[in-house]
Amino acid sequence: MSDGLFASTLAALDLLGVAVFAITGALVASRKQMDAVGFVFLGTVTGIGGGTVRDLVLGATPVFWVREPAYLLVCAICSILVFFAAHVPRSRLVLLVWLDAVGLALFCVLGAEKALAHGAIVAAAMGVVTAVLGGIIRDILGGESPVIFRREIYATAALLGAVVFLLAGSALPREPALLAGFAAALALRALALRNRWSLPVYKPREARRPEDVGL
Amino acid sequence: MSDGLFASTLAALDLLGVAVFAITGALVASRKQMDAVGFVFLGTVTGIGGGTVRDLVLGATPVFWVREPAYLLVCAICSILVFFAAHVPRSRLVLLVWLDAVGLALFCVLGAEKALAHGAIVAAAMGVVTAVLGGIIRDILGGESPVIFRREIYATAALLGAVVFLLAGSALPREPALLAGFAAALALRALALRNRWSLPVYKPREARRPEDVGL
Amino acid sequence: MSDGLFASTLAALDLLGVAVFAITGALVASRKQMDAVGFVFLGTVTGIGGGTVRDLVLGATPVFWVREPAYLLVCAICSILVFFAAHVPRSRLVLLVWLDAVGLALFCVLGAEKALAHGAIVAAAMGVVTAVLGGIIRDILGGESPVIFRREIYATAALLGAVVFLLAGSALPREPALLAGFAAALALRALALRNRWSLPVYKPREARRPEDVGL
Repeated sequence: MSDGLFASTLAALDLLGVAVFAITGALVASRKQMDAVGFVFLGTVTGIGGGTVRDLVLGATPVFWVREPAYLLVCAICSILVFFAAHVPRSRLVLLVWLDAVGLALFCVLGAEKALAHGAIVAAAMGVVTAVLGGIIRDILGGESPVIFRREIYATAALLGAVVFLLAGSALPREPALLAGFAAALALRALALRNRWSLPVYKPREARRPEDVGL
Repeated sequence: MSDGLFASTLAALDLLGVAVFAITGALVASRKQMDAVGFVFLGTVTGIGGGTVRDLVLGATPVFWVREPAYLLVCAICSILVFFAAHVPRSRLVLLVWLDAVGLALFCVLGAEKALAHGAIVAAAMGVVTAVLGGIIRDILGGESPVIFRREIYATAALLGAVVFLLAGSALPREPALLAGFAAALALRALALRNRWSLPVYKPREARRPEDVGL
Repeated sequence: MSDGLFASTLAALDLLGVAVFAITGALVASRKQMDAVGFVFLGTVTGIGGGTVRDLVLGATPVFWVREPAYLLVCAICSILVFFAAHVPRSRLVLLVWLDAVGLALFCVLGAEKALAHGAIVAAAMGVVTAVLGGIIRDILGGESPVIFRREIYATAALLGAVVFLLAGSALPREPALLAGFAAALALRALALRNRWSLPVYKPREARRPEDVGL
């Protein structure tokens, strides 16, 4: 694939990830029975949140949606579509969780790819940051329990996708490496959702309140 | 108005908006019965929050209050004044909501004006971001239900103000355009508050919990 | 102390502060019974959160942990250690609160030092921001009541440390000035914790709900 075509493909996938996350944000807005502007606000913040933080910490400013306002339009359009169509799917929550999984898998490799110049550790971290932050912002603003802290494997899937992409990228051309990372992340998250997989959690003791320990 | 006078006027209005939002932050601190430093912290974060995010995403760093620390002093002074005077108004909450409306109307045009060079879509988005983010940060930190998700028209007023400013700016000089946007946003928010106006909300279905859908 | 040695000492102290805050983040993860990746995520975000915001608003991008990924590794290692050792201390919460106090005292002087070129007001503000933001992000993500709004003196200790550092720095060499600020912040926070010191809080009136005032 030529460099120009590769860049266009990346941009298209990035736009797809933003659209998918915007839909999840608007679905949370529908769960909270907001008005149309609330849908657009929460959809847009969710769609562009992860990439915005990524661009800020990398110093790539103005951030991507200031340079390319089409991202804002896509978020707004997706959110409005959800406003009129959120009653169609049998379960909004199931749709939300699965679209979130697709967005997670897309952004963990695309985020890592954008930070490749900063080395493998930063690239892996940036993959995770780009993948999970939109959803975290969505859940905090929407008053939902943040998806990252639910039981099923979540950030782990993003980390796996980024690591697979980085390892594959040292042996393979960039296109199959991206695909491998995406597939690994989506497969792990999907299996975790289907089979209620979770990593072992820490559970020796319940949390105590400050009063209990004399604070 | 000369360019220099115009810039001074913008700076004065910006400082006014920061002061107004700082007072709303300190009023939330008084509702939560914080100490004086809590007032200053929450007042300052509320006053400068929206503009800080605007500057960050536009790449205008160091952000405005690093370049011009007078903003920090104004926030601190307003917050301390509230600490000593919050018992004076008959209702802090009514004062808070109306000052928030004034700040919203100021920042939606000032934020859009700062981003004019990036085109109309980004300018409108930046007007909304600058206007609503200080209040969102205030409400999340203060443990209040975020104002943006209450029923009455809120972000919509900021969007209207930014759009009126941008449309008026294509036909009129910049001063009346700013005034028109400010007046439009404040009028819509005020009418919404007085008459409990809200946009139609999405309500086909209540939200379900993950357990309900087998997740 | 030579400039080179001083810079190395600052970097070592900064890494120590990051490690200490990462442990507090992982301890919150253990209170919430997260999995190992949750520990690493919350530990890392807590460790680097304050410094990231500081670098962003100062325009020092890419932020420090992109330039020096060792910070990420230290956060990950500390978090994993906590995952396996959180049952050892008699009280995680007591450990958490005291480590948080050490991190607060370190970051209030280190944050102020990094912003010295912007003048005393910005430096003091940046000391407070660097010191308190990691903990605020930790508590919001972890669903704990933000430490900054608990009764005992907290942000005040960070402000004192930054101010002592700035005042001492005008009379003394930089090393004792840093030490004086650190000691002042830690002493105040420790005394506040031991003796349940708090500043006078605002309490004329309870908060009312919007319905109570006709909104």
